[in-house]
Amino acid sequence: MRDYAKEVLEGSPRAAARLISWLEDEDPRALEHMERLHPHTGRAYVVGITGSPGAGKSTLTDKFTFALRKKGLTVGIVAVDPSSPFTGGAVLGDRVRMSRLAVDPGVFIRSMATRGFLGGLAKATADVVKVLDAFGKDVILIETVGVGQDEVDIIGLADTTCLVLVPGLGDTIQSMKAGVMEIADVFVINKADRPGADQLYAEVTTRVEQDAHIRERAWTPPVVKTVAVEDEGIDDLVQAVEAHRTFLEESGRLAEKRRRRAREETLRMIHGELFRRIRERLTANGELDALVEAIVEKRESPYRAMQDVVARWLRE
Amino acid sequence: MRDYAKEVLEGSPRAAARLISWLEDEDPRALEHMERLHPHTGRAYVVGITGSPGAGKSTLTDKFTFALRKKGLTVGIVAVDPSSPFTGGAVLGDRVRMSRLAVDPGVFIRSMATRGFLGGLAKATADVVKVLDAFGKDVILIETVGVGQDEVDIIGLADTTCLVLVPGLGDTIQSMKAGVMEIADVFVINKADRPGADQLYAEVTTRVEQDAHIRERAWTPPVVKTVAVEDEGIDDLVQAVEAHRTFLEESGRLAEKRRRRAREETLRMIHGELFRRIRERLTANGELDALVEAIVEKRESPYRAMQDVVARWLRE
Repeated sequence: MRDYAKEVLEGSPRAAARLISWLEDEDPRALEHMERLHPHTGRAYVVGITGSPGAGKSTLTDKFTFALRKKGLTVGIVAVDPSSPFTGGAVLGDRVRMSRLAVDPGVFIRSMATRGFLGGLAKATADVVKVLDAFGKDVILIETVGVGQDEVDIIGLADTTCLVLVPGLGDTIQSMKAGVMEIADVFVINKADRPGADQLYAEVTTRVEQDAHIRERAWTPPVVKTVAVEDEGIDDLVQAVEAHRTFLEESGRLAEKRRRRAREETLRMIHGELFRRIRERLTANGELDALVEAIVEKRESPYRAMQDVVARWLRE
Repeated sequence: MRDYAKEVLEGSPRAAARLISWLEDEDPRALEHMERLHPHTGRAYVVGITGSPGAGKSTLTDKFTFALRKKGLTVGIVAVDPSSPFTGGAVLGDRVRMSRLAVDPGVFIRSMATRGFLGGLAKATADVVKVLDAFGKDVILIETVGVGQDEVDIIGLADTTCLVLVPGLGDTIQSMKAGVMEIADVFVINKADRPGADQLYAEVTTRVEQDAHIRERAWTPPVVKTVAVEDEGIDDLVQAVEAHRTFLEESGRLAEKRRRRAREETLRMIHGELFRRIRERLTANGELDALVEAIVEKRESPYRAMQDVVARWLRE
């Protein structure tokens, strides 16, 4: 059997791609490799890029990547596509557009789509970030649409989160749900050459200055204007992200953030492993079928059945 | 302590609302009530209404509800809102618009938003459907945007799933991801007075006729045109859903569908409860903190740690 962990550490993109495929398929063979990669993780800096569909996140990610490459940094891109199944085509188009990046050996791109049972996407994304980290990428960009719990979990993987807004997309501050402002470490007003950009900029800036939650955090999120398709404002964005990184490192918050992430990840892994084992056991001995029959016929309630099984299996 | 289960069975909307709030908060007090409601579930027919944001699902749900009420049927509506946090305002507006429904005692409306840890939304929605079922609603409508794994699980709760498409929203059949066509038992072309409606109708109809997966299912999904705001085509939609229901009942597939659902639900409940208890213990005795410390310092890999924890708490 090939030693994929060793090959990943030696920089083989094929080995990385294979390992990532296993992770996506929840193939148990990935486990021992991930275990061996773990000591080599924690070096990459992870940047999240999120915002509404149509905000231009893919283009921004491209340009950001080019800017980082010019500085000599290697980049991993994880494009998570939890977008509506009804509009799956658009994202594929975006990825094809990135062909210039795809031939650069200093860049590794992976698209991931919604799949799996119970939080599978966030778990798989976390694992892919780890592979790219061990693989030696200096910066890892996670690009995702801000929808649903999966994506909230995904953006939680980032050290710095950039929230991309655009004028005219209904992205007014008033329309945002509670908590959305708080996830942003850097605000990006993209397509800033459009009408309404100055107003959106003023609105966000005012809100950042007034927001009590943000003020408490000791970091005031900068608001950066970009026109990604024209490559405008990208250097400002890079600087803003670097400033946030410096802030996190010097204040000790990066270590704290990563400790919290390790905690969540550990819980999530336990969650996933529990499910795998429970399903295996219940289906192997036919117990589940018997239980379901009793529940459907109302001889048994699923709540009591659950408590019975849990009492039987959980060690006190 | 008040007997909420009894009150729900007697038709108290306040008791139903209280129980649902407990379910949303994962309050353990809900459990015994849910257990007692279980024998009274399984009577309601569950219809899922899904489609892209902007497809007019809320309006369609309203009109569908009015049509069912005219037939003397009571209706429960569970509006699941996993939409982008960036556009949270719109949904609230939609719900306000339903005030005519809100004062009808034959209708019970509940909005649910993304929340909870790992698959919590699907579980909470399943429980809410059960409460409304025991509460005596004849038909339960689940309205949700088709994004993410949560929503795939949520639509799995429906006996009949209506997929709402609109012309001009990029809802072409070609753009759909694999598997989307298969979830639809009834196709709805809403806003059918818009340009492109006939073309979309023809496209969907052709695809339904040609699709091998659909042909295998013995049920050919009808394609219904509606203009929900004008109340046009709603009766056709009601008939299409009724036809599907008759098909499921007469072919024995409804029982099969519900058995499968009970199976998934039971697995999910056992898993959720086991995880809850293990997490509780891990955090109570400081074990999780110690583990996380070891993982962050690379003395321990999260993969091995997870396996240790699961092996220790699960009885063989």
